[in-house]
Amino acid sequence: MSAPRYTPTAQAVQDRITSYADTFGPLLRSYLIQLGEAFDHPAESAFTPNALSLVSDLALAGGKRQRAAFVYEAARLPGTEAVAGAADIGALAIELLQTALLIHDDLVDNSSTRRGIRSTFGSYTAQMPAHPQYAMGMTVMAGDLASYLAADVIAASDLPADLALAMTRVILRAGKETYCGQMIDLERDFTALPDLAFLDTVSDYKSGRYSIIAPIQLGLLAAGHDPAPHHDTLHRYSRAVGILGQIRDDYISFFGDPKVTGKPDSVDARAGRLSYPLREALAAATIREKHHMRTVLGRTDATDADIDMVRDIAYTHGVDETLRTMMGQRAQQARDEAATWHLLGWDPDAVGFFAESTLWGAERAS
Amino acid sequence: MSAPRYTPTAQAVQDRITSYADTFGPLLRSYLIQLGEAFDHPAESAFTPNALSLVSDLALAGGKRQRAAFVYEAARLPGTEAVAGAADIGALAIELLQTALLIHDDLVDNSSTRRGIRSTFGSYTAQMPAHPQYAMGMTVMAGDLASYLAADVIAASDLPADLALAMTRVILRAGKETYCGQMIDLERDFTALPDLAFLDTVSDYKSGRYSIIAPIQLGLLAAGHDPAPHHDTLHRYSRAVGILGQIRDDYISFFGDPKVTGKPDSVDARAGRLSYPLREALAAATIREKHHMRTVLGRTDATDADIDMVRDIAYTHGVDETLRTMMGQRAQQARDEAATWHLLGWDPDAVGFFAESTLWGAERAS
Repeated sequence: MSAPRYTPTAQAVQDRITSYADTFGPLLRSYLIQLGEAFDHPAESAFTPNALSLVSDLALAGGKRQRAAFVYEAARLPGTEAVAGAADIGALAIELLQTALLIHDDLVDNSSTRRGIRSTFGSYTAQMPAHPQYAMGMTVMAGDLASYLAADVIAASDLPADLALAMTRVILRAGKETYCGQMIDLERDFTALPDLAFLDTVSDYKSGRYSIIAPIQLGLLAAGHDPAPHHDTLHRYSRAVGILGQIRDDYISFFGDPKVTGKPDSVDARAGRLSYPLREALAAATIREKHHMRTVLGRTDATDADIDMVRDIAYTHGVDETLRTMMGQRAQQARDEAATWHLLGWDPDAVGFFAESTLWGAERAS
Repeated sequence: MSAPRYTPTAQAVQDRITSYADTFGPLLRSYLIQLGEAFDHPAESAFTPNALSLVSDLALAGGKRQRAAFVYEAARLPGTEAVAGAADIGALAIELLQTALLIHDDLVDNSSTRRGIRSTFGSYTAQMPAHPQYAMGMTVMAGDLASYLAADVIAASDLPADLALAMTRVILRAGKETYCGQMIDLERDFTALPDLAFLDTVSDYKSGRYSIIAPIQLGLLAAGHDPAPHHDTLHRYSRAVGILGQIRDDYISFFGDPKVTGKPDSVDARAGRLSYPLREALAAATIREKHHMRTVLGRTDATDADIDMVRDIAYTHGVDETLRTMMGQRAQQARDEAATWHLLGWDPDAVGFFAESTLWGAERAS
């Protein structure tokens, strides 16, 4: 079957994501408001509404809503009429799961800010400065609560049972695989020089599973379409986009975003976390350079000059160029994969969105 | 309707719980073994199988399996044929949720042992002694993983969709309410002298919801019976039993278990946690005694003599007797509630089990 190829531009993809975000934002806000009112929590408690409020603040501070957009756009893929409300429920679930993951991630990374506001852990630390163990405990529970809300928004919906169950399974599977991804993300730090393949696996599990494949599966289900027969192609696509996204984040973090003035941050270097640029630099460095790098990486008190020296080593070996090449390859891989979806008879416009949303990612960092 | 009253003895109840545990143990073990084999986790990772193994160790170390027994026994209540395998799935789910809760609870409480083995946090601390932040992070993720496994064992089962969805909702609701219970459990520590009603609410949410009402709802669903119309009576029962269980645990912890030789522990007193006995003692104490108590409670370096002094104050005001009376009242309340289940036409033998399993609890500490 030869389908017409409509290729939206990177700008068109970004505009469409923004337009989904415009309708999704109020929906999320309504859900969070009724949640606070309807939730069966102890009337005597101040801590529970406070936790719900911190979860809400973080959920609402989210920016692009790319995951929600992927749900809505995937619901257009099969060209069938979507089950009323199903894509909305899927989008809520995936954004709540994202919120839950961020809450625990910021605790594990000891990060006090997120999305331009205090992280949940940062808020609790500020609320109970003399009680760090309680701040940690409340952050654990707030994240636990959010993770169950993510599944519950589907399971407790009034969608048909078959559909609600299938969508709940997607969220639970995405969560399980992402938790594994977070574990191997920590495992990476115990590896002197992880393989590139290891970093790719981290990206696949930690980002690709819940950010890419799960939203697409939710959207397909919302449109009454079983994603199971398409698992392999969806996974090849999500893996490529997940890796691309992680390289892009690491690139911007280490080399700086050309669209944003100001110094790049150097959190990964000071934490000794072997991100893509640091791994590539270490792999390419001379013995002498390696020795230099090892004296800097993982030192929280490393000076800016120390970090600049590491960055210079990376530039010397063309690591910036290497990463841009990798991103281009992953974008091409994802685009090629999405191109095969035309053969399934899927909507060319929606397929074009998925093909080009990877390019949008690659262009940001190049 | 006047149903024959068959009243099993406390010993018979205990025997029945043991007999359920004998068949449930191998089932749980099989599930955990196939989980490790079938789970989609990164082949390159050592951390993920290690986490699954720690989750398994803790799940298998569980003793009485009272929650699993409640599922199986509740499936007998309506006198209908249970859906094949449904009670097993419900029992697995509730024991996995319990495991997940314990993993995070021990992190929040900084406890290194649980169920006679190392807690998950204790294991990670032992595995990475130089990296406390990583030990914390891995414990957070292992608990997250277990909590999603609890819901997934139902959602991904081959039970009919309606039933699987209804049972998944029970687990998710139980989790959400228990997380709230754990939050107010911490909130209690920020209250100079919490009301007795506040402690009862903590017990209801923190224990009653997932330990009592959820297993009964799962069992009823497994038997094809909708628990929704019975929510109020089930909640009155679960609340009474949840409070009874918490008073009993606090009593044994503070006054010692007459059936066990050796000193009672004094963790709550040294942590400044106002358990039932400490709250009652503080509420009854003279101003001078209160002052004494306040100098001891919350001091991790309090001596045994200090704690004995607090215990003496409690004895002086008959707090042990007060708590035994409370336990008796809660047991009677639960028994009275269960007695009304005969009017629903529920199986007298199964009803008797629920009526007397509360007595079994009360007798242990008296």
